[in-house]
Amino acid sequence: MAGYVRDDISEDEHERQRGLYGPFTQAVRDLLDATIRTEVDDDEVRAVQAEVEALTERLRVRQLDGPYGVRFSASGRGRPWGNPVVGVRNAAAPPLEVERDPAGRAWASFHLGAAFEGPPGLVHGGVSAMILDQLLGEATGAGGKPGMTGTLTLRYRRGTPLGDLRVEAWIDRTEGIKTWARGHLLDAEGVTVEAEGLFILPRWARERRAEADTAPSYFE
Amino acid sequence: MAGYVRDDISEDEHERQRGLYGPFTQAVRDLLDATIRTEVDDDEVRAVQAEVEALTERLRVRQLDGPYGVRFSASGRGRPWGNPVVGVRNAAAPPLEVERDPAGRAWASFHLGAAFEGPPGLVHGGVSAMILDQLLGEATGAGGKPGMTGTLTLRYRRGTPLGDLRVEAWIDRTEGIKTWARGHLLDAEGVTVEAEGLFILPRWARERRAEADTAPSYFE
Repeated sequence: MAGYVRDDISEDEHERQRGLYGPFTQAVRDLLDATIRTEVDDDEVRAVQAEVEALTERLRVRQLDGPYGVRFSASGRGRPWGNPVVGVRNAAAPPLEVERDPAGRAWASFHLGAAFEGPPGLVHGGVSAMILDQLLGEATGAGGKPGMTGTLTLRYRRGTPLGDLRVEAWIDRTEGIKTWARGHLLDAEGVTVEAEGLFILPRWARERRAEADTAPSYFE
Repeated sequence: MAGYVRDDISEDEHERQRGLYGPFTQAVRDLLDATIRTEVDDDEVRAVQAEVEALTERLRVRQLDGPYGVRFSASGRGRPWGNPVVGVRNAAAPPLEVERDPAGRAWASFHLGAAFEGPPGLVHGGVSAMILDQLLGEATGAGGKPGMTGTLTLRYRRGTPLGDLRVEAWIDRTEGIKTWARGHLLDAEGVTVEAEGLFILPRWARERRAEADTAPSYFE
C-alpha cells in the first residue's frame, strides 16, 4: 500500500530530524493555544495574522504534495509524524509519547490544554475516543497483532478534566487476524473513559508480512 | 456549571468576532498544515520557529487564564469556539459548519487534510470517532434532547480517504433523560464509518433547564 514508505534513514538521521521538527512543531502548538486564548486587540490580531500568512508561504516554498504518510527506517522504526495523536510534526497532536510492552500493552502520560476542550473545562468526548483508538491500536501492534480498527466502543464514566492524564491499553484476546483490545483514560482520581475495540489485519498487510517485507507494526 | 458563560453579546458583536477570529484561525490552520508538509532546509525551519515564538508572545500579552469554555449570547446562540471539531478559534478543528433540523438531525460537509491522517492517505480512525461524537451530540441538541456522551460505538466499514467528506446524524429514540443517536461518515462512494451513541442530560443541566435559565443546547 502506498504511503508506508521505507526510506532507510539511519538512527542518527531519525534523531536529527526529531530534534529539528519536534521543537518547531511545539512552537506552532503553542501558537495554536494562544490563538484560542488571546485577548489582544483587533489590530494586533490582524497584524499577527499577516505575519503567520507570510511564514506559511516561506514553509510552502518546498513541501510534500500531499500528507506526510508513515515512513520507516531500515530498522523498522516508524515515523507516523503527521498523526493527530502521536505525530511529532502535527501541532494538533498533544503529542503522546507512547511506551510499549511486547506482551501487548501500551501506555502514555500526557497533558491536554485549551485545544482539546468540549464541555467547559473538560476534554471533548471525541478527543478521548481518538486517543483511546490510537492506544488500543498501539497495544495490538506492540503484541505483534496489529490491525486496523474494526469496531470501537467507548463508555464515558464521568467527565475528563483538562490537564494531566494517562491512558493505558492492552490486548484482551486474539483469534486469527482479529485482535480485541481494551483500555482506559485516567485522571488523578481514576478511570474516566473505558474502551474496547476489535482490530483486523488487512489483506495487503498479511501478504506483505508473508513476504517478510517491512509491514507496519500498527496502522495509526 | 462554570464555563457555560452567558455574556449577552449582540448578534452584531457575534458576527464581528467571527469575522475577526475566523480568518485569523484559518491562517494558523494553514501554518499547521505547512508545518507537517514543509521540506525547506533546517536553517529556514529554525528561522520560522523563532518568528512563530515571537508571534505567540505577542498574543499572550493579554489572554484568558484557561481554556475558552462555551459562551452564550442573550439569544442563546453559542460560541463553542475552542471546540476541536467546530471551534472557530481552534486551528486544530477542520472546522465543521454544522447544519441542524429541529426534528433532531445534524449534518456537515467538510474537508480533511494532512493534519487528520492515520494510515497513509486515510483519516485517522480516532478523528472519525471524534467527528461522529460531535455530530451525534449536535443531533440530540437540535432535537431538544441534549446530553453528554454516555456510550459511543463506531463500526469502521472501510478506510475513509482524506479529502471531501460528509457526516450525518439523527436521533434514533429517547427515553426520559436518555437519547440514542445514530450517524455515519461518508465519502463520495458512500458510508465509511457508522456510529451509535447514548447521550444523557446531566443533573446540573436538568436543574438549570427547570429554572428556565439558559442551558446549553449541546455539550461539546
